[in-house]
Amino acid sequence: MTNNKIFASIITIGDELLIGQTIDTNSAWMAQELNKIGVWVKRRVAVGDTREDIWQALDEEAESSQIILITGGLGPTADDITKPLLCDYFGGKMIVNEQVYEHVKTIFLKLNRPLIERNLKQAEVPDTCEVLMNVRGTAPGMLFRKADRVFISMPGVPHEMKGIMKSSVLPLLQKEFQVPVILHRTLLTAGAGESFIAERIRSWEEALPSHIKLAYLPNYGMVRLRLTTSGIEKEALESDIDRLFLQLQELVKDILIVDTDTPLEKALGDLLIKKNKTLATAESCSGGYIAHLITAIPGSSVYFKGTVVAYAYDVKENLLGVQHETLEVKGAVSEETVTEMLKGLLATTSADYGIATSGIMGPGGGTPDKPVGTVWVAVGSKEKIVAKRLQFRFDRIKNIELTAANAMLMMFQLIENETEK
Amino acid sequence: MTNNKIFASIITIGDELLIGQTIDTNSAWMAQELNKIGVWVKRRVAVGDTREDIWQALDEEAESSQIILITGGLGPTADDITKPLLCDYFGGKMIVNEQVYEHVKTIFLKLNRPLIERNLKQAEVPDTCEVLMNVRGTAPGMLFRKADRVFISMPGVPHEMKGIMKSSVLPLLQKEFQVPVILHRTLLTAGAGESFIAERIRSWEEALPSHIKLAYLPNYGMVRLRLTTSGIEKEALESDIDRLFLQLQELVKDILIVDTDTPLEKALGDLLIKKNKTLATAESCSGGYIAHLITAIPGSSVYFKGTVVAYAYDVKENLLGVQHETLEVKGAVSEETVTEMLKGLLATTSADYGIATSGIMGPGGGTPDKPVGTVWVAVGSKEKIVAKRLQFRFDRIKNIELTAANAMLMMFQLIENETEK
Repeated sequence: MTNNKIFASIITIGDELLIGQTIDTNSAWMAQELNKIGVWVKRRVAVGDTREDIWQALDEEAESSQIILITGGLGPTADDITKPLLCDYFGGKMIVNEQVYEHVKTIFLKLNRPLIERNLKQAEVPDTCEVLMNVRGTAPGMLFRKADRVFISMPGVPHEMKGIMKSSVLPLLQKEFQVPVILHRTLLTAGAGESFIAERIRSWEEALPSHIKLAYLPNYGMVRLRLTTSGIEKEALESDIDRLFLQLQELVKDILIVDTDTPLEKALGDLLIKKNKTLATAESCSGGYIAHLITAIPGSSVYFKGTVVAYAYDVKENLLGVQHETLEVKGAVSEETVTEMLKGLLATTSADYGIATSGIMGPGGGTPDKPVGTVWVAVGSKEKIVAKRLQFRFDRIKNIELTAANAMLMMFQLIENETEK
Repeated sequence: MTNNKIFASIITIGDELLIGQTIDTNSAWMAQELNKIGVWVKRRVAVGDTREDIWQALDEEAESSQIILITGGLGPTADDITKPLLCDYFGGKMIVNEQVYEHVKTIFLKLNRPLIERNLKQAEVPDTCEVLMNVRGTAPGMLFRKADRVFISMPGVPHEMKGIMKSSVLPLLQKEFQVPVILHRTLLTAGAGESFIAERIRSWEEALPSHIKLAYLPNYGMVRLRLTTSGIEKEALESDIDRLFLQLQELVKDILIVDTDTPLEKALGDLLIKKNKTLATAESCSGGYIAHLITAIPGSSVYFKGTVVAYAYDVKENLLGVQHETLEVKGAVSEETVTEMLKGLLATTSADYGIATSGIMGPGGGTPDKPVGTVWVAVGSKEKIVAKRLQFRFDRIKNIELTAANAMLMMFQLIENETEK
């Protein structure tokens, strides 16, 4: 445990994780929040609803980390075995917690749902724990201490876990541990591969001080670069990492998209706000995914006008004014069609900028000259339109994601170039 | 290791997982595929790019499982330490693999990218491993054997990992291990809570044979119920689980949505195909997310016509024909507006059925009588429209997801009821 780091382990409990029925999004969120208060996640472990596996995970993680966070396994139904196990593991007996009891009753009253015995079982906790109230649900959080380790058990429902983390766990950990600072600086590049970048910045990278780590995170044909450091002296670390981050930005200036750890859709939104412009999309093959990414950003209604998802020919014609002849002669997946889609979109929504997509996402629908993964993207304004044919070779979901990422990148670059002049 | 189960552990390597920068979707996919061939995932562990942590994970997981699958840490850049570590762990020295060498050269030739020394390093592997070719990328998979355990290392890029799994790993494991069958049966319910269902089916659940497990998986106000069994005698198990699954369906008949493990958007699509009907959506607050969920399903172009994402007032008016007065007097988030959106959508797209949403997803935009989380949803056809006000209390993303799930559920139920008559 170098550098006096405070380490945490995350244990997630539930067979649904081990048979692949559920994707674990909790752990990423928890790791981010712990990072912000200077706690480093050392390990994440998922185990099934099996007594000995949970017990073993508790033993093992207590070896590695001072803080052990446990999610899942606390529901009211019979597949949940975590609470009795925790009672045995930490000693003690089950008692009814009055505060939780009243809280559960109040919730069911409010929801106007029948309250049954099983729900009131939620109010039972081991008498060796400190209860962390769960205002968003019925299963309480529980804190246990054993041999200078802190164990915290929370329900696996994401918004309930997040509520308990924010109101109880994070403030408590901050108070209890003398946490070092963890600092990250991340930038996003496009247009060059990981190896190419590595080669270009090699001598700079080799000269990095030992407390600064560089990571390459490739995705969707773009590469994120992340600098990380941690330690006690915040000011010195900050000055170090900021200086090196500026050097790094300079080294990748020509391929730099944004110098923060923001997703591309956020970077695009920020650019639109800065330029005081609006955007709309006309999506065929991306099926509304670009619109979803953009509207998932708070405040996007300021710059986002709307979308036409034109899956059917008649929607392309009626709502976007694509010529029937164009579709018949050139096909839906063609430069002519995406260009007409874009022109129609800009006319009908009065947006300053627009993105149009049309392609074959698979698994079906490919032809010899337009195989699965063929996509036409057009981006532009009333003044200027750029269209490009892309070729992907993955499954449907990945092809949709790549279409969205590349289309937003094209839009970002066009706006930046256009307004620079 | 009861029941002769074959156990696997999944180790994912990378700091990005521990600081929450990346959500681990690989593990869920791998677990599903392993399950299909009868391998049970016992544990999933994520560790950082740290030599001793990876080493420790290898030691520990070899204690629990016969098969250890490792992803991540194989890129061409300096943050990747996995390959040299594996070389030390299993003994041996690094050699150049000719087949991989040629493959890497071919890829760069095809992409027309400059090939640098660093890329050719990808062709170096420990001489103690068996190479598993990666046709989708440059970093090869590697198989090691140690004390009757099989260790397989793969790159973390999802489509590369999936390629190696399908072409090499899964066939190899099937051949090498006498795998028992794992069977799941899952159904989806809506309209009743977890505890309520548990209470209703209690006596049935208590009488389940010991080799059959029942799990409750609540999400978006719906509850999935999953039966699981595993063992050697496939026919007997199948007959057991199918009989019990039919009993379960009968017990929850009134709240049953679909008797397969399909997401709601797939169930809705299947219903539309069955009824030979088409669908369109008019989305304000859900911002294209419903369209995205529906179009992510292969073959959805058969029943999905398209979408208008109407974020701005003028898009609601121009493309959906919402009256300016309605927006001014009743507001964008009102029964009148969603109803007009739906009528306009059905007229303009000629879809048989439509979904319209309008709401305040937060964090900003709430008012005392329409707080953040207020949503109006309308679903219907030219003959019948049902509108409902919903109230959520979560963050923006979760509110969008809940809007989509509830709107699709309303649509599903309306179509089922309408066509039953």
